Amino acid sequence: MEENMSVNRGCCMIEELVLKNRSYRRFVEEKRIEISVLRELIGFSQKSASARNIQPLKYIISNKKETNGLIFPQLSWAGYIRDWDGPEPGERPAAYIVVLHDTARETTEKLLWCDLGLACQNILLGAVEKGYGGCLIASFRKKDIVSVLGISKRYTPLLVIALGKPAESVRLEEVETGGNIRYYRDGEGVHHVPKRKLEDLILKEFADG
Amino acid sequence: MEENMSVNRGCCMIEELVLKNRSYRRFVEEKRIEISVLRELIGFSQKSASARNIQPLKYIISNKKETNGLIFPQLSWAGYIRDWDGPEPGERPAAYIVVLHDTARETTEKLLWCDLGLACQNILLGAVEKGYGGCLIASFRKKDIVSVLGISKRYTPLLVIALGKPAESVRLEEVETGGNIRYYRDGEGVHHVPKRKLEDLILKEFADG
Repeated sequence: MEENMSVNRGCCMIEELVLKNRSYRRFVEEKRIEISVLRELIGFSQKSASARNIQPLKYIISNKKETNGLIFPQLSWAGYIRDWDGPEPGERPAAYIVVLHDTARETTEKLLWCDLGLACQNILLGAVEKGYGGCLIASFRKKDIVSVLGISKRYTPLLVIALGKPAESVRLEEVETGGNIRYYRDGEGVHHVPKRKLEDLILKEFADG
Repeated sequence: MEENMSVNRGCCMIEELVLKNRSYRRFVEEKRIEISVLRELIGFSQKSASARNIQPLKYIISNKKETNGLIFPQLSWAGYIRDWDGPEPGERPAAYIVVLHDTARETTEKLLWCDLGLACQNILLGAVEKGYGGCLIASFRKKDIVSVLGISKRYTPLLVIALGKPAESVRLEEVETGGNIRYYRDGEGVHHVPKRKLEDLILKEFADG
């Protein structure tokens, strides 16, 4: 799998970005992300597909220490890793993007969350290209986020994207059919992520010729 | 907007891909997509993030004329464009990826559809880089897709990705705050997509310094 998962040097950019785009949870906190960079990332999400082109998503961006300090305590980190409550001071995200539903833009729950995934992937791949990395956090105290950020009732927070310069190694591994997919951290602090095999993902193949 | 939306030549690859990655609905049908390319695209989705790393998605891939011919009639195309039932013969997709939920992998509906969006964006950006383009179709006859593709009860089709070499121009436009976001096709067959302005997407900005 190591081999399967490694970057094919002869190949194209997107393959490399997709591979580098891991869920990073520890960062070089002092390495700033300029607000102009965050705006650029929102520009990428702006151009993602949206079901019926409704574009129901809004964004709050922060690279401000004070605000980051209000967001951080509301987040849950890496459910599978016991005895770890998230990154220590110095390893925390340098910036956040909070993605919200503008409830004035009606859509279905499924299509809203699909739009969200499409938009977030553009943001994350853009961040990776710029030397940063991120983690999508769906588990957070919604009421408290609403309160500390002063979000009006029209908007519902869906996801928090934590961003920064990664300060950890993440390794993909191939998992046997039906095997354990829980990620884990080894004694050297490397984060391992078991991914299902390609043969397990492709249910059927209809090939011409 | 034309200017805002155009590719910044001095800038990076992902910006260009994100911009080129439009929802294409008319294709050069005779331009094949090799099955190895479809497998490679699934390899990109394999590496996308998945909530709690459940990886609940499976894929059916087809570049086979016969199978494509069974899939096509089940799809609904471009709801906003009246008097158009989808691409004519010769302009139809050269390949399909049907994305399914493996119901043996439990997750929530929200997280399932977020995973789906993340995975699909990797697939589409990969396709664009290879000179193809696609359209995510959420509106299709599910029972008939299940029947013509012989899908067992364990799997629920979520989305069909139509793929091919694009045979149409798609232009992004900026829409005024609260303006009409319905896409439309002009007299010359150009497809126009009104996108909300960056200022309308960023609800709040907390900037340091």
